[in-house]
Amino acid sequence: MLRPLLAITMGDPAGIGPEIIAQSWSDALAHKLSRRVVIGCPLVMREALRIVGAHVEVVEIDDVTEASDDPQRMSVLKIKTPAHQATKCQVSAVAGKAAAEAVLLATDLALAGKISGIVTAPLNKESLRAAGVQVPGHTELLAERCGVQNVAMMLYLPPAPNLVGEIGLGVVHVTLHTALRNVFEELSQFAIVEKCHLATQFSRAMLQASQINRDPRIGVAALNPHGGENGLFGDEEIRIIAPAVIVAAAEGCPVVGPLPCDTLMHRAASGEFDSVVAMYHDQGHIALKLLGLQQAVNVTLGLPIIRTSVAHGTAFDIAWQGKAGSGSLLQALKVAANLANQRETG
Amino acid sequence: MLRPLLAITMGDPAGIGPEIIAQSWSDALAHKLSRRVVIGCPLVMREALRIVGAHVEVVEIDDVTEASDDPQRMSVLKIKTPAHQATKCQVSAVAGKAAAEAVLLATDLALAGKISGIVTAPLNKESLRAAGVQVPGHTELLAERCGVQNVAMMLYLPPAPNLVGEIGLGVVHVTLHTALRNVFEELSQFAIVEKCHLATQFSRAMLQASQINRDPRIGVAALNPHGGENGLFGDEEIRIIAPAVIVAAAEGCPVVGPLPCDTLMHRAASGEFDSVVAMYHDQGHIALKLLGLQQAVNVTLGLPIIRTSVAHGTAFDIAWQGKAGSGSLLQALKVAANLANQRETG
Repeated sequence: MLRPLLAITMGDPAGIGPEIIAQSWSDALAHKLSRRVVIGCPLVMREALRIVGAHVEVVEIDDVTEASDDPQRMSVLKIKTPAHQATKCQVSAVAGKAAAEAVLLATDLALAGKISGIVTAPLNKESLRAAGVQVPGHTELLAERCGVQNVAMMLYLPPAPNLVGEIGLGVVHVTLHTALRNVFEELSQFAIVEKCHLATQFSRAMLQASQINRDPRIGVAALNPHGGENGLFGDEEIRIIAPAVIVAAAEGCPVVGPLPCDTLMHRAASGEFDSVVAMYHDQGHIALKLLGLQQAVNVTLGLPIIRTSVAHGTAFDIAWQGKAGSGSLLQALKVAANLANQRETG
Repeated sequence: MLRPLLAITMGDPAGIGPEIIAQSWSDALAHKLSRRVVIGCPLVMREALRIVGAHVEVVEIDDVTEASDDPQRMSVLKIKTPAHQATKCQVSAVAGKAAAEAVLLATDLALAGKISGIVTAPLNKESLRAAGVQVPGHTELLAERCGVQNVAMMLYLPPAPNLVGEIGLGVVHVTLHTALRNVFEELSQFAIVEKCHLATQFSRAMLQASQINRDPRIGVAALNPHGGENGLFGDEEIRIIAPAVIVAAAEGCPVVGPLPCDTLMHRAASGEFDSVVAMYHDQGHIALKLLGLQQAVNVTLGLPIIRTSVAHGTAFDIAWQGKAGSGSLLQALKVAANLANQRETG
């Protein structure tokens, strides 16, 4: 089987993106699972490889079909923005422009079927804004370019010492980057059902990629403490979440809930669920960061293309010192490769 | 040093309270740290000891000063309610009445200085209600009897394999058993400052009990995702929480915050904080249940007496089968003994 060709976008050149790509380049498992091409700036990548002390040669290419499969060579498809001019560890328009250009180029290549998926290094929201890019972040940029609206960010953690599920644990959020106060109006039966479908599709693909022949198990979180105790502490479970679970189940999703989120997360970590549908940001993030901050991966669900990402930011405070860890990037590569293989064969 | 005398209330006789007390009775560490007396029904305790196969003799006493210090003898101060008449594994008025009577009796003994602290086995809220006791649970019952209003429930986890802090981790909640929707109106600067003081006092006492000579470190959680990102996702951090942290710090509490709760919990589990002030139920409970569901203890802060409790319920579904684990009860005994020693010597 031909290993999938994945594009890694360089991210913000002022942040830790280039160095974690450099550090991960010669990883044996990443090489075994995928062929890779970087979309970004060859000069920046050369400097990043130097910083981390990697003996890898940068080769500029004009077309992804020319990508080298030698782990000692890094093929870089060059973007137009002069990313090497960006000041390190600082917000700048040129850095934001470079980051956005790489993502859009990668998206177009994936939509055209020239690559099997995208793995993105972190970008900086303020740099994006300085560059005049009017979206909050990666997810919105990708959704817009792909022409879809119903996307969701899944935070995914592969199997880990304190996480015994066969395919790890994914959490998809019904609401995300919004004030907690706004969750109540954003929460709808439709949105929950949709996330149940996305979680089901993702867990099903991961099970197939791991050659595990069973249905996924999806737990849907309650919103209120103790799941509202039958309306005593809030009625969103009764009015919105329970009916959504019934609809999703009727539509073929293997979902149960609503379950009080504290016990749900404990049960999920114990292997009882493959994915959790969380109602708001902190429900999912508190749990997954405790279970494995360094290994967490973001997966965008609902796109026509495969896209995974590191689950951390640009970390300007430690960037370009060769200190940043590439654990999350390696996991993101692994998940993208699994999803791509599954899509091509499944 | 005389080991502190702790009263263990039997809890709901239909639930797992009696059997976990029976199971824990001969534990060497519990015996080493404290003298113990059960407040409840001798008949029920005899049956519980039989169920778990413990060779311990029940001795009825009329006054706590008669409590035996032999781990093979269990001194029981008898309540008036005929708890043995309660049907097992079911809600009943007699069970609720028995549970409440034991708690009130223990509270009076502690207030009178006849015992050093109370450790409570679980009661059932519906049984309480059936008995006509008009409070939601233990905490309110204790606060009312002690004549105090400003109490707080701390969920505390002792040091554990995945929790490296020297004195474990305590989480005190600013709001607790209320709909998430109501958190916004219940959250006040005053309530947060008060919880900062309670968390500081508790962590200070635990440090002294462990003979660790340093100030505690308290992290205060943000309410919104990413801590609100400077008002982008909610302004409670700016309007309420940050000012409360400033006031609490000025009043001598070693607090920092508001910090985004997902990273705060990860940092706390890594040993950076001794206690966390959480804004609502699930922030604290998701984290602590993941870190150690079986070992978690409740500590009521703000009472004039020492009171700890198991962090689980009556578990009617598995009660009276000898299956329930006594890990949380043993930890609750240990924490109460530490607090009592510290209070008497510190």
